[in-house]
Amino acid sequence: MAAKSKNELILGIDLGGTKTLVGVVDRDGRILGRGKLSTPSHQGGDAIVDVIARAAETAILESGRAFDEVGLAGIGSPGPLDVEKGMILFSANMDVVNYPLAAKLSERLGVPTVLRNDVRASCYAEWKLGAGKGMNNLLGAFVGTGLGGCLIIDGKLHVGHDGNAGEIGHIKAKPNGAKCGCGLRGCLEVYASKTGLVRRFAKARKRDVNSQLFRVWNGPDQKLKSRYLAECYKSGDSLVLQELQRAANYLGGSLGGLVNLLAPDAVILGGGVSLALGEPWLNWVRAAAKEHMLVIPEDREVILPAALGDDAGVLGAALLASESVAGKK
Amino acid sequence: MAAKSKNELILGIDLGGTKTLVGVVDRDGRILGRGKLSTPSHQGGDAIVDVIARAAETAILESGRAFDEVGLAGIGSPGPLDVEKGMILFSANMDVVNYPLAAKLSERLGVPTVLRNDVRASCYAEWKLGAGKGMNNLLGAFVGTGLGGCLIIDGKLHVGHDGNAGEIGHIKAKPNGAKCGCGLRGCLEVYASKTGLVRRFAKARKRDVNSQLFRVWNGPDQKLKSRYLAECYKSGDSLVLQELQRAANYLGGSLGGLVNLLAPDAVILGGGVSLALGEPWLNWVRAAAKEHMLVIPEDREVILPAALGDDAGVLGAALLASESVAGKK
Repeated sequence: MAAKSKNELILGIDLGGTKTLVGVVDRDGRILGRGKLSTPSHQGGDAIVDVIARAAETAILESGRAFDEVGLAGIGSPGPLDVEKGMILFSANMDVVNYPLAAKLSERLGVPTVLRNDVRASCYAEWKLGAGKGMNNLLGAFVGTGLGGCLIIDGKLHVGHDGNAGEIGHIKAKPNGAKCGCGLRGCLEVYASKTGLVRRFAKARKRDVNSQLFRVWNGPDQKLKSRYLAECYKSGDSLVLQELQRAANYLGGSLGGLVNLLAPDAVILGGGVSLALGEPWLNWVRAAAKEHMLVIPEDREVILPAALGDDAGVLGAALLASESVAGKK
Repeated sequence: MAAKSKNELILGIDLGGTKTLVGVVDRDGRILGRGKLSTPSHQGGDAIVDVIARAAETAILESGRAFDEVGLAGIGSPGPLDVEKGMILFSANMDVVNYPLAAKLSERLGVPTVLRNDVRASCYAEWKLGAGKGMNNLLGAFVGTGLGGCLIIDGKLHVGHDGNAGEIGHIKAKPNGAKCGCGLRGCLEVYASKTGLVRRFAKARKRDVNSQLFRVWNGPDQKLKSRYLAECYKSGDSLVLQELQRAANYLGGSLGGLVNLLAPDAVILGGGVSLALGEPWLNWVRAAAKEHMLVIPEDREVILPAALGDDAGVLGAALLASESVAGKK
C-alpha cells in the first residue's frame, strides 16, 4: 500500500435526478467512505452544490481521512453539458439551465473539479472495473429517473462532435410519440425510464386502476422510488408488471436495433431501476432485444447486467477526473 | 503520373439489389472505365458472378487498358457478410444464402478479391474523397432498394464485434411495425427504402388510387426505379409526394435520434433514391431530423448530400480492397 500523502484522494460525485452520492476514492479505485443525500431537484444549482458539499463531509468522515488529503473531484451529472466549460446546459429532470457546476463546486470544495456526464461516468467505470472489463466496443443503457447511455468504441469513450455523444434516451422510439422532458416527441426515455413510468402510472391512477403501488406512491408530485417498483414487481402487481413489460419491450426493441447498427461486444444494462429489479427485468429486456437482432450470437449473451451497482457513478467520476488531469482525456 | 505497370489497376465492383456497376480504378482513385448491368436478383450467386464478369469486360474495354494490368478486385455487396471468409450470409433483396462470393469472383477474374459491405464501401469513399472528407465521425445513410448505413468513428471505419456494424436499416423505427425483408418487425428500412415504398404503392394500387406512377410501374413484380420516383415527385403526383414525405419523416426522425446518440460531425445522405430526388428530398429529411435533435447547430448543416454519386460504391470497394491488401484493413 502506498504511503499516505497530501492530494492522493479523489472525491467521486454521482449527481442523480433522485439522489446524490459522494465517495472518497483512492488511487487504486477503492471507495473509502460514502455520503448520500436526496437531490434538491427543483431548487436550482446552488442548492445542488450545498447538498454535494454536505455529502462530501459525510464521506470524508466515514473514510477516516482528512479533507486536505483530497486533491481532485470528479462529478458525473445529467446533461447535456458543456464539458469544456464545466457547465450544465440544461437538465430535463433537475430544472437547471446554463449552470457553471464545475467552477462552483471547485470554489466550494477547494480542489479542481472535472464535470462529466453521469451515465458516461458509470459506463466508464463498468468498462474499466465492471461488467465490460477488457472489451473494446460497448453500449451502456442506464435506466433510472431518465434513460442515459454511453458508447465505448474501439477502446475509447466516444464523445463525438460536441462531447455529448451517448444520449440513448433521446433516440426516436415511436413516430409521433408522447412528449419527452427534453421537448422532443417519442424519445425512448418516454417509454423506458421512471419519468416515462410516472406518466403511465399517473394515468392509471386517474382511471382508478387498482394497484399496490398506489398505497406507497401518491402521484407525480412524489418521487417514484425504484424500490417501490421492485416490491410491486415481486408481489406480482398486475399494473406494475404490465407497465414494466411495456418498458422492457421498448427498451429491448431499441437496444436490439442498436446492436444491429453498432455491433458492440456487449450492451451493459444498469441504472437504479435495473439494479432494483434484477434478473427477471434483465431477461425481459434480453428477450425483446433478441426479437430485433439480425444475428443472435449462440456463444454469449449480448446484454449484460452492470456489475458495480450504486458505486459505478462515483468510481467513474473519480476515474474520469483522474484521467482528465493526467491528460489522457 | 506513375509509369504503367502490371497489376496497378483495381476493379471496383458495386453490387446493388437493382444494378451492378464495375469500374477500373487507378491508384490515384480515378475511374478509367465503367460497366453497368442489371443485377439478376433472383437467380442465385453464380448468375451474379457472371454478370459482374461481363460488366468488368465492358469496363476494361472502355478504359483502354488490358486485363493483365488489373491486380486486385474489391466488391461491395449487400449483407450481412462474413468479411473474413468473403461470404454473403444472406441478403433480403437478392435471394442469396451463404455464398462464397469473394472466392468465386477471384476464380473467375483471376485476381485476389476482397468482399466488403456495399454501403460501407460507398461511405468510405465519401469519407476519403467526397462529402465527409477530413471529418472524424460520420454516419452514412444510403437509401436505395434497401437502406444501408455505415459509421466512421474517431477516424476509422467502425466494423464492430462481427464486422457488420452499420446496419442503420434495421434499427427499430416503430413498435409492432410492419415486417421487413430481414424477418424483423418495424425496421427503418420498411419505411425509408424502395422496398418499403413498393409495399405502400402496391397497397395504393390495389385501392385504385390514381397516380402517374402506375403508368410506368405495374406493381411489385416490376422494379421500382428511382427515376420513376423522381419524375412523379417533380410533377407533383400526390401519392408519390405523400409517400416520400412519410419516408422522409421516418428517416429524418431516426437520423435525428442517432445524431443525439452518436454526435457525428455529419450524416451523409446517399443512395439511388437520394441521388435521384436531390435537394427537396434532402430538405425534407433535414427538417424531420431537426425536429428530433436535442441541439441544432447554428453554424453547420448536420445532414449533407453524398458527393460522389454513382461512383461512390465502385471507388469505395477499390479503396477498401487496396487498404485491405496493404494490411491497413
